[in-house]
Amino acid sequence: MTPKLARFLDSGMVSTPAILVDLDRVAANFAALRAALPDAAIYYAVKANPAAPVLDRLVGLGSRFDAASIEEIRACLAAGAAPAAISFGNTVKKRAAIAEAHARGVDLFAFDSDEELDKLAAAAPGAKVYCRLAVSQDGADWPLSRKFGTSGTHARDLLVRAAERGLIPWGVSFHVGSQQTGVGAWRTAIGQAAAVFTDLRARGIDLRLLNLGGGFPTRYRDDIPPLGDFGAAIMDAVRQAFGNNVPDLLIEPGRAIVGDAGVAVSEVVLACTRHEDEGRRWVYLDLGRFGGLAETEGEAIRYRITAPGVAGADAPAVLAGPSCDGVDVMYRETPCPLPASLAAGDRVLIHDTGAYVTSYASQGFNGFLPPEEHYL
Amino acid sequence: MTPKLARFLDSGMVSTPAILVDLDRVAANFAALRAALPDAAIYYAVKANPAAPVLDRLVGLGSRFDAASIEEIRACLAAGAAPAAISFGNTVKKRAAIAEAHARGVDLFAFDSDEELDKLAAAAPGAKVYCRLAVSQDGADWPLSRKFGTSGTHARDLLVRAAERGLIPWGVSFHVGSQQTGVGAWRTAIGQAAAVFTDLRARGIDLRLLNLGGGFPTRYRDDIPPLGDFGAAIMDAVRQAFGNNVPDLLIEPGRAIVGDAGVAVSEVVLACTRHEDEGRRWVYLDLGRFGGLAETEGEAIRYRITAPGVAGADAPAVLAGPSCDGVDVMYRETPCPLPASLAAGDRVLIHDTGAYVTSYASQGFNGFLPPEEHYL
Repeated sequence: MTPKLARFLDSGMVSTPAILVDLDRVAANFAALRAALPDAAIYYAVKANPAAPVLDRLVGLGSRFDAASIEEIRACLAAGAAPAAISFGNTVKKRAAIAEAHARGVDLFAFDSDEELDKLAAAAPGAKVYCRLAVSQDGADWPLSRKFGTSGTHARDLLVRAAERGLIPWGVSFHVGSQQTGVGAWRTAIGQAAAVFTDLRARGIDLRLLNLGGGFPTRYRDDIPPLGDFGAAIMDAVRQAFGNNVPDLLIEPGRAIVGDAGVAVSEVVLACTRHEDEGRRWVYLDLGRFGGLAETEGEAIRYRITAPGVAGADAPAVLAGPSCDGVDVMYRETPCPLPASLAAGDRVLIHDTGAYVTSYASQGFNGFLPPEEHYL
Repeated sequence: MTPKLARFLDSGMVSTPAILVDLDRVAANFAALRAALPDAAIYYAVKANPAAPVLDRLVGLGSRFDAASIEEIRACLAAGAAPAAISFGNTVKKRAAIAEAHARGVDLFAFDSDEELDKLAAAAPGAKVYCRLAVSQDGADWPLSRKFGTSGTHARDLLVRAAERGLIPWGVSFHVGSQQTGVGAWRTAIGQAAAVFTDLRARGIDLRLLNLGGGFPTRYRDDIPPLGDFGAAIMDAVRQAFGNNVPDLLIEPGRAIVGDAGVAVSEVVLACTRHEDEGRRWVYLDLGRFGGLAETEGEAIRYRITAPGVAGADAPAVLAGPSCDGVDVMYRETPCPLPASLAAGDRVLIHDTGAYVTSYASQGFNGFLPPEEHYL
């Protein structure tokens, strides 16, 4: 938690559950990414945290934006982003969404199928398009499954077809998986992408854009390699694969920009021993999986949790949310040490919750409203 | 889908994604449950669908209400429910929520721990309390894990303590798991509950209430036993366990009242072949796990899906939602036959989605708004 957030919390004006985000940390993370990868344009992944204050600050810093939906595009435009600074990065889009985006000046679109290409040719004639490759996501804590991307061979055919359909085959993208902690994860994917560039040049098409996707991690419980290591490894792989013909580079960080800028404040609703669960201690918070902590599904993202105002030694706990739903349990296998004296009414902090929390929150499961959001 | 919903859909006034609920079906389901278990008071589990039109209709029918939060209690009172017709059924409650409920006249509270008992004694002095037992949930498609309930031995002690603390030890509850399709699932639990009644009578405490919980199923893809079979099995078990001293009975149905009263209407955003996924066909809808289909997690609840306006033979599909999130996949292992000609812009119906859909919907993940709701 940053000093600014700590001061705001001390003011006593925060009711729980709440998410506090330090916009200066957002700016610092943006600067750190720019320093780590000075040759890549930063397209902030809006889905990580679409709040207007975040978008406003990033517009001011010269960020570009990766949008998943027309609603996110509208939010970027409302924040003052130029249409040319927006990429419509979801490979699955409604035709009406493509048409509206194009009419508003957005000119860069992702795709990975013949059917999406048809929609783009009809609804965004003349637009720049890039094709997403399916690549390995080993090393990612929140992998993106086989839902997106296609083979290099199919991508070549699709990009040729794009030109035939009056679109501009602009480049190739991939995604190595979210919260990717392996510095070398980009290397193989960059090689696959370079092969597409080479083959298409032989077919008379000069691609311009290599979209390196997101995946840059934030620090949860475990240390992560410094951003500079990711930048160095990526640029080394790019130079090796492309030689002197380095294409325009683009990254789509979300978590790495807002993750550690946020902290969640939650109240303990109940702490008790569950005799029917081998005597385990259960701690129930007023913020759970359906209040925004969706990435604890399968205990994938392991947040650091502290109870700064509570004295005494720690003891293990199972951590659950406030709803009557049995799957609303955040950590059962993951160790979750919390003060043994923790009791109803105490507050805990769930750290590094600036990304992928607020927007997941249900509109009112079990009657519980989404956490309040404070941007400072 | 009921004829009334089909007519409304034909009117062309529904944009997707949307949930349509037939309130007459809600009423019919309420009547069917009353007929199947005439000796049990029906406390509708508000969490299944907290929409005002549903609550209004049920108030008119004389339903009582099982609430998970103070927000749900407020909604019930706003719909005209009497405070005495509301049970605060979550065993995990904030002290302020207990106090507000009690101040508004709610007088029946669940608990399952010493710590919750302390809160109830302080914030709802003199209230009736019932203790939740942990029981087997074998046979449930959406079990409630070990998050709730305690042992019979502990429950006895807790109920004695409740009396000592000035509360009224009113009874025992349990939950056999949601979407419970085993007619006999209640039998063992009823026996466990009866043992608590017997032991407490020996300690001078006469319990009055046996809360049989929810779990009554709705028909998704597979046939379920008729409601009458559940009623007969339960009453047989109650008479066997309690003899002539049958206590007040209470059930908390949610899914069985609203589940098959609803249908979701969704538009196909993309249908394509995924070469990198063994050539599988993927169908992407504008309604996914984070738009409300949360119970497809682990493919637990298997909805029936049709595309009535689309001609031709069916072929298998993987079914996914519209977001960029890799876990936003509803069915991958579960067979999902849909017309081979299904294409972007076509509509599909996701049947029996009146329960546990709308309230799970995220407030805007990836920018996508919750489905529109229509109550007819």
